[in-house]
Amino acid sequence: MSAPRASEFELIARHFAPLAGTRRIAAHSLTDDAASFVPRPGFDVVMTADAIVRGIHFLPDDPPALVARKALRVNLSDLAAKGAVPLCFLVCLALPRDIEEDWIAGFAAGLAADQQAYGIELAGGDTTSTAGDLVVAITALGEVPSGRMIRRSGGRPGDEVWLSGTVGDGALGLLAAQGRLPELDTADHDALVDRYRLPLPRIALGPLLVDLGVSCMDVSDGLVQDLGHLARLAGCGATIEAALLPLSTVAARLCGRDPPLLASALTGGDDYELLIVAPPSRAAALAQTASTSGTPLTRIGRFHAGEGVVVRDAAGERLVLPRSGWQHF
Amino acid sequence: MSAPRASEFELIARHFAPLAGTRRIAAHSLTDDAASFVPRPGFDVVMTADAIVRGIHFLPDDPPALVARKALRVNLSDLAAKGAVPLCFLVCLALPRDIEEDWIAGFAAGLAADQQAYGIELAGGDTTSTAGDLVVAITALGEVPSGRMIRRSGGRPGDEVWLSGTVGDGALGLLAAQGRLPELDTADHDALVDRYRLPLPRIALGPLLVDLGVSCMDVSDGLVQDLGHLARLAGCGATIEAALLPLSTVAARLCGRDPPLLASALTGGDDYELLIVAPPSRAAALAQTASTSGTPLTRIGRFHAGEGVVVRDAAGERLVLPRSGWQHF
Repeated sequence: MSAPRASEFELIARHFAPLAGTRRIAAHSLTDDAASFVPRPGFDVVMTADAIVRGIHFLPDDPPALVARKALRVNLSDLAAKGAVPLCFLVCLALPRDIEEDWIAGFAAGLAADQQAYGIELAGGDTTSTAGDLVVAITALGEVPSGRMIRRSGGRPGDEVWLSGTVGDGALGLLAAQGRLPELDTADHDALVDRYRLPLPRIALGPLLVDLGVSCMDVSDGLVQDLGHLARLAGCGATIEAALLPLSTVAARLCGRDPPLLASALTGGDDYELLIVAPPSRAAALAQTASTSGTPLTRIGRFHAGEGVVVRDAAGERLVLPRSGWQHF
Repeated sequence: MSAPRASEFELIARHFAPLAGTRRIAAHSLTDDAASFVPRPGFDVVMTADAIVRGIHFLPDDPPALVARKALRVNLSDLAAKGAVPLCFLVCLALPRDIEEDWIAGFAAGLAADQQAYGIELAGGDTTSTAGDLVVAITALGEVPSGRMIRRSGGRPGDEVWLSGTVGDGALGLLAAQGRLPELDTADHDALVDRYRLPLPRIALGPLLVDLGVSCMDVSDGLVQDLGHLARLAGCGATIEAALLPLSTVAARLCGRDPPLLASALTGGDDYELLIVAPPSRAAALAQTASTSGTPLTRIGRFHAGEGVVVRDAAGERLVLPRSGWQHF
């Protein structure tokens, strides 16, 4: 038996008010209906929203701090893809009645940790009960120099395709969490599961891309599917060279041993890396940006006349993929 | 049997992309990860978020257009209370699998109608499936002249308490919808139920209050409870004079016939009127503002030393209320 849950007002005062912005955001300890900020002259405001649902985007027994950080980070990843510097966020929580206050305390602790890590401030939100499953809906705001928000569109045939970090660790991490990669030792298993559970939004890299004339999106639904969106917006096709793909050491070992896993790596979701399309003339600038931001960037393919995305192996043979990416419904 | 639901991308393109902002908001037909806007010099950005859940905030068989409009309007009401002019909103939808595309089409039509009515633009959002119940989480943004966001705090003993519109129609409308006011004729029944189902955010009034040095909040959880928040922030008590309360014709008739209903009117939620606290010297300016905005404003009581909220009848006797307002959990 648990004690009766505190009122909404008590829960907010206890767990969320300490997170309320004070630096750029006037959030008034969340005692008001709204928060405000003074826009920075010369900057546009960028807005994005993403919701995660228990049983769909996270596991019922995931620690609440991790759930909070994932919910925030998937939004930060979108801001990074736009070249925006994170500013603030609002969080709506629909809480089943079986959620105890400890869960809420853990959730708030997760937000607190990532606010600190990513320099973002809580601006407000709403908590409500639900007879259904737990939903965390976050809206995040950031800033970019005026008129410089990076778009998904703008690529053209001949452009090169770049990817930050590594591909597939999120998808392989989900398989590991499901017990479907029993050959992994504990350290590798845990490292992959962590990558699935907790995205690393590329907020150091994103804002450095605004002057480079690139197109960009974050890879959340699978590399092949997401690259397909960029190619379609550019009215062309794309080829990925499998030999160029940046794989973590453990992903490379797994795919070497069991080649079909490469398809999972290419089409599973939860990478949250930046997929960047740029003319070849930008290669040196991108390499410099990678170095400045401390973020690995790898050229993995190119845009060309045609449509769709193909992946070719070292011999030039086309890999057959069972699907292109994550379907939301 | 229903046809398989379209993919998230198809649903967005079909139903939500036509609503995407183009006036102040660069929303790119919702094909991008984010939207942006150029802040207006001399204005602050105001942010608020509210979620509504099926079975808690709306009835399972409420028409989807009404659900959309209610979700949007509760946020617009918060912006109005801050004196903000609505700018844009983002909507996260967690949809059970039994929701059909017709429902989504109706929901989008409701948003479209209110976008038109309130001059607000869709900036983005997220749709996801859930094994639980339907959740609509909206974040709304607006603008106020720099440094002028109206706060809940700032009242003091001696201030007068004003209320826009009428009180209690929302709460009585819920009773009517539940079949608990069988003596009503059809027209009165429907009028009250409409007031429960569809708030009328006071966005014409709110922005006119920013220069008047008032405190304000919207009444969503019951007049007595919400006035209690304002009084507590002012460090004082408040008295409402029941004889001054603005009641609609039908509410006045119901409460006249069955006096305990007045307690429901004072403590039930869903009024979405503005509760304004101002020094007596502002009375003429408030009356002028009411006239300019076409919004009735009634002085209903005052702040004074002490704490808590009391309601007194014409004889000065204190009314005993069974509770002060809506509890969220």
